[in-house]
Amino acid sequence: MYSIQLTTPFQLESGEQIENLEIGFNIYGKLNPARDNVVWVCHALTANSDVFSWWEGLFGENKLFNAEDHFIVCVNALGSCYGTTGPNSPSINKRPLLDEFPFITTRDMARINEELRFILGIEKIALLIGASLGGQQALEWAIQAPNLHEKLALIATNARHSAYGIAFNESQRLAIFSDPTYGNGRIDGGRQGLIAARSIAMLSYRTYSSYVKTQTNPGNHVVESFLASSYQEYQGRKLADRFSAYSYVTLSRAMDAHNVGRNRESVEAALSSITPKTLVVGITTDQLFPVSEQRFLAKHIGNASYAEIQSEYGHDGFLIEYNQLEKLLDAFLTNQPPENYSEVIQNNQTQFKLVK
Amino acid sequence: MYSIQLTTPFQLESGEQIENLEIGFNIYGKLNPARDNVVWVCHALTANSDVFSWWEGLFGENKLFNAEDHFIVCVNALGSCYGTTGPNSPSINKRPLLDEFPFITTRDMARINEELRFILGIEKIALLIGASLGGQQALEWAIQAPNLHEKLALIATNARHSAYGIAFNESQRLAIFSDPTYGNGRIDGGRQGLIAARSIAMLSYRTYSSYVKTQTNPGNHVVESFLASSYQEYQGRKLADRFSAYSYVTLSRAMDAHNVGRNRESVEAALSSITPKTLVVGITTDQLFPVSEQRFLAKHIGNASYAEIQSEYGHDGFLIEYNQLEKLLDAFLTNQPPENYSEVIQNNQTQFKLVK
Repeated sequence: MYSIQLTTPFQLESGEQIENLEIGFNIYGKLNPARDNVVWVCHALTANSDVFSWWEGLFGENKLFNAEDHFIVCVNALGSCYGTTGPNSPSINKRPLLDEFPFITTRDMARINEELRFILGIEKIALLIGASLGGQQALEWAIQAPNLHEKLALIATNARHSAYGIAFNESQRLAIFSDPTYGNGRIDGGRQGLIAARSIAMLSYRTYSSYVKTQTNPGNHVVESFLASSYQEYQGRKLADRFSAYSYVTLSRAMDAHNVGRNRESVEAALSSITPKTLVVGITTDQLFPVSEQRFLAKHIGNASYAEIQSEYGHDGFLIEYNQLEKLLDAFLTNQPPENYSEVIQNNQTQFKLVK
Repeated sequence: MYSIQLTTPFQLESGEQIENLEIGFNIYGKLNPARDNVVWVCHALTANSDVFSWWEGLFGENKLFNAEDHFIVCVNALGSCYGTTGPNSPSINKRPLLDEFPFITTRDMARINEELRFILGIEKIALLIGASLGGQQALEWAIQAPNLHEKLALIATNARHSAYGIAFNESQRLAIFSDPTYGNGRIDGGRQGLIAARSIAMLSYRTYSSYVKTQTNPGNHVVESFLASSYQEYQGRKLADRFSAYSYVTLSRAMDAHNVGRNRESVEAALSSITPKTLVVGITTDQLFPVSEQRFLAKHIGNASYAEIQSEYGHDGFLIEYNQLEKLLDAFLTNQPPENYSEVIQNNQTQFKLVK
């Protein structure tokens, strides 16, 4: 991971500012002579800039996105805890701000990508890609910087976070706030609450049928310590071992406030200002970002196609259904003419379908 | 509300026993001379024996179930906090048992209904009805007491609680346990955790579309204090003002352990032993008890019909879709011959459909 520090204060949408903002990022591969091989990734809620580690079905050696062919950049999200300034970072007075870290938005998160791009001297981005909260940032960046991105791939994301999404995030914050160690001045505050929060989030990332399939106890005789219970706690602990409750609250609030229409003419007008050729991907069983949200994006972004992948895993499908994602993205990247592209899809109707 | 106390210790399925068990219950109307007008209700997770107050679309003056025509009985659930012995009740040594209250099952919960029936001298129950956790108890009672119930109505319930349902309950318990006042020896312990737990439960009781429809902020400019956030906290506080975190944990564990096949030949065999004529009702958008679970019940209960009600409210539809429920239950109660019954349904295809 690399790191740079901004020398001028970073202005937040709220009016507050962050001094000495540090941006942590990963790069893979080299800019080619034509300078047209940049793939820029925005990561989701609890991931980080090491995209080869968490999106390994799409990024890595011999993968669709690889360091031989592409110059891949991924920034650690503003407000998170993997190298970019966030609630757990030492502040000017050396103490981390924790629950006093300022309110940030997906617009602020997008803007640190633009700051880094400028510093790296990259003039053109061949593909900007993001899923979930990563897609929300990618959308904002595409709106903020017209004509910068050649192509845009938006997976399981939305133009405005839904009331259901906000309610899920609020329940997670209520769980964190019911842990009184949140706000105790220590960077590991809120650990028990974060365990509960992650377990709640899993319910929105997966589906009834995927839980039944993978977490049902065999036989009929168990009355406690069910597989499904252990799974929830395991997932919670796994996150709490690597993440900060303060970053979690900060990022979930940014997600709630995500609305491309804010202080702009409208949601639709903001989307129609997007210039790159765009592929929007929905996942059939996504309960948190249902396909209606991606259809809406594709409808209002000027030059967009909408594709749907089949999955029983819900929102987490973007981290699981690599075969379908790779086919869709490959067709999109290689500029297959619409007729060929449709043909690919028609040959695989059980796997995915293109609507527009 | 009335209350009776058992003079002999009540044996739990776990082998433990509860001394001086108190059963709180409501009755409405009078037993008719033919003694064939008993309607017995089992209530769901956080309701109580005052069925006229919480199921007011079906129970009350001039309602399908009323005190003129019926003798209606509803018992406060074992383990809850409305009059039947539970974690907050004074125990033998006067202190409430709180988190030391014994583990109970839906079989134990069903059995206190049988105890009360025996004491009241009721020999025949015209209709046993329950939804959700109430349906789970009703199912168990129908299995435990063959030939007692003439008819059985099971709404939005299941034969065995699912891995997804258990995971939802576990996340709620994790939220409660992240509040260190749970287990502090006071009856109001775990209040903050219970607020979070209820807000989580709401996500499973409702749907994406009902949240979007009722909890979306107008305009695009709000960045915090969203309607959906206030709604989650409001629902949490409303429950915490009237319910016990200890009862909540006790009952959610009973729900998790619900499995009619336990220590019986199989789930299917247990269902096939049920004798009353049965109506099973599913709600199209129920995420917590999806219709596949009610179809399964209807398939294996010997003399069962399955009907589906249309709702955008998910599991909570059983507390909202009174028009559809009343029509279905009325046809079921009045013994409309199958051909007429089907006709009623066919005239209202947009409202509900009968499958079997």
